[in-house]
Amino acid sequence: MKLSQLIRTVDWIDGKVRILDQTQLPEKVSFIETNDIKKIWVAIKHLQVRGAPAIGVASAMGLAAHIQRVKATSSKMLIKEIEKSVRYLASARPTAVNLFWALDRMKKLAHASISLPPNELKKALIKEAISIRDEDIAMCKAIGEYGSSLLKNVKTILTHCNAGRLATSEYGTALAPVYLAHERGYKVEVFVDETRPLFQGARLTAWELTRAGIKATLICDSVAAVVMKEKRIDAVMVGADRIAANGDTANKIGTYNLAILAKFHKIPFYVLAPTSTFDLNCPDGSCIPVEIRDADEVINVGKTKIAPDGVQVFTPAFDITPASLITAIICERGVARPDYTKSLRTIVAPLQHG
Amino acid sequence: MKLSQLIRTVDWIDGKVRILDQTQLPEKVSFIETNDIKKIWVAIKHLQVRGAPAIGVASAMGLAAHIQRVKATSSKMLIKEIEKSVRYLASARPTAVNLFWALDRMKKLAHASISLPPNELKKALIKEAISIRDEDIAMCKAIGEYGSSLLKNVKTILTHCNAGRLATSEYGTALAPVYLAHERGYKVEVFVDETRPLFQGARLTAWELTRAGIKATLICDSVAAVVMKEKRIDAVMVGADRIAANGDTANKIGTYNLAILAKFHKIPFYVLAPTSTFDLNCPDGSCIPVEIRDADEVINVGKTKIAPDGVQVFTPAFDITPASLITAIICERGVARPDYTKSLRTIVAPLQHG
Repeated sequence: MKLSQLIRTVDWIDGKVRILDQTQLPEKVSFIETNDIKKIWVAIKHLQVRGAPAIGVASAMGLAAHIQRVKATSSKMLIKEIEKSVRYLASARPTAVNLFWALDRMKKLAHASISLPPNELKKALIKEAISIRDEDIAMCKAIGEYGSSLLKNVKTILTHCNAGRLATSEYGTALAPVYLAHERGYKVEVFVDETRPLFQGARLTAWELTRAGIKATLICDSVAAVVMKEKRIDAVMVGADRIAANGDTANKIGTYNLAILAKFHKIPFYVLAPTSTFDLNCPDGSCIPVEIRDADEVINVGKTKIAPDGVQVFTPAFDITPASLITAIICERGVARPDYTKSLRTIVAPLQHG
Repeated sequence: MKLSQLIRTVDWIDGKVRILDQTQLPEKVSFIETNDIKKIWVAIKHLQVRGAPAIGVASAMGLAAHIQRVKATSSKMLIKEIEKSVRYLASARPTAVNLFWALDRMKKLAHASISLPPNELKKALIKEAISIRDEDIAMCKAIGEYGSSLLKNVKTILTHCNAGRLATSEYGTALAPVYLAHERGYKVEVFVDETRPLFQGARLTAWELTRAGIKATLICDSVAAVVMKEKRIDAVMVGADRIAANGDTANKIGTYNLAILAKFHKIPFYVLAPTSTFDLNCPDGSCIPVEIRDADEVINVGKTKIAPDGVQVFTPAFDITPASLITAIICERGVARPDYTKSLRTIVAPLQHG
């Protein structure tokens, strides 16, 4: 089955952006189909769309959809509205780099197209938004291709959190090799860490894999050691939020735990992420700030309180996996191996000079 | 503060057994105070009382309370009712060894007291049930003493699941050194794994420690690696469900995970459990059967569904920690160190010949 036949996280449908509402998963598959800029802002703000690449695409398509409705007699007027809308959408999540990047790209395209008549400019915005989506798909697919080359004999992988289709436009990052293998008819199976406290593995990853027809087995995070010991895992594959120059990797809390378990059981541990997550100005993991989240996220599961009132909770959003526990880092430009200080720099070099 | 001033898990109050209803924790502190044998059966069956030692005490006290109400003109008649009641209570949880052991002890006492008048036999039953409780307290305290001797410079421990007061009559097993230190005025702090899927750490351990005035910090299970890396943990202390002759230890799922993390961070990993959990007929962990639990326990948290319907779930109740990851096994008779095949046998030898 072609992945493109499945529901897309974000899509362009008849002049509107269609966003799969991830806050309703796994209970309900519902969509926000809109050209109302306020609804797009809300969708980004309230995590109805999440995952850096998916947010970027949603903001670009949302902007394009909104602009179609604007009545303007000149492209100059249109650009004024575009700039205002970009500022507005950018305010939805103040730390999401891909959001700014995608909106900035749309703004630049508009300025470069100022000589076009308004209707042509409107069409150009749609085209650019779809390009951003298509490039995201191509980037994820490239990660998948490089990942697949490493996974010749891998039948079962273990993953954490959600770095799949739902976080991107199509293939995902950590799961790209899995989707690619599935598309090509290879049998592959995924063990999914539920990923406490917010259950992204259970709610999102288990959902999207099952939906794509890929065998997925959900486990509590603390069960990973057991399935590794039973030799049921050939490789661990996770995404990344930020990768330092030496390869130290920030990712969802629980990733460092998995990396230690993988080392102990002699199972390869792969990080799959686009070069946009590389932060080569950051020498190592110690300079990556780790957000500490609110106790309520641990204590309350829906309406159920799982711990006594007033208990002290320590709940970091991310952890740092030291480079020494990472077998390889796979991005859309290739596979980096230790020593990462050298290999990451080599992989991004053409980008920096291009 | 003396622990005996705190609420007891199971207690004897005015001719009735009083059971702290653990299914209501942490939201509500409520008790079942009864001499109705059906209510006692239900309390054991539905985990209102849990933890092998606590179940044993509850069944003995429950039996004694019930028998007080029985009108009998001879001790022979009374013994008939005792035997019937023992069979009934034993059916509440068919695999709980301490339950059978405690009921069997009550039955033996009754038979040995057949020459007493009925009223005296009734009193003897109460005395025996209270003895079982007091011996449990003494056993836990002994574990605490041996544990304390190892923990001279330990200020912060990490624990998993609930092997504290709530699982026993007073000090707990894994937490006995913590309560003892606290009772003696030493400052000690505990990090508590929430313990998915049933949250015994969050619901029970965090509750009982906070209630006793001991500083407790709740963490999601996957956060343990981070607090170890930050050098905030001096020792890991867990209980045990069964210990094989070579020291391999079955305990709540997630224990093996912790043992690997402790090894990686060079933190001592202690198992604290009474000799009744030693199974020297079992040569190693491979012969300990591990119960696989129902998917619903993972998927449903209260009324909230955290994963899609029909997803496959692998959820073992226990895991086996290999002896090679265990620094010492502490029981009420002393401290066993590797090679456990020798040390465990030596520690129980006086019991076997006694």
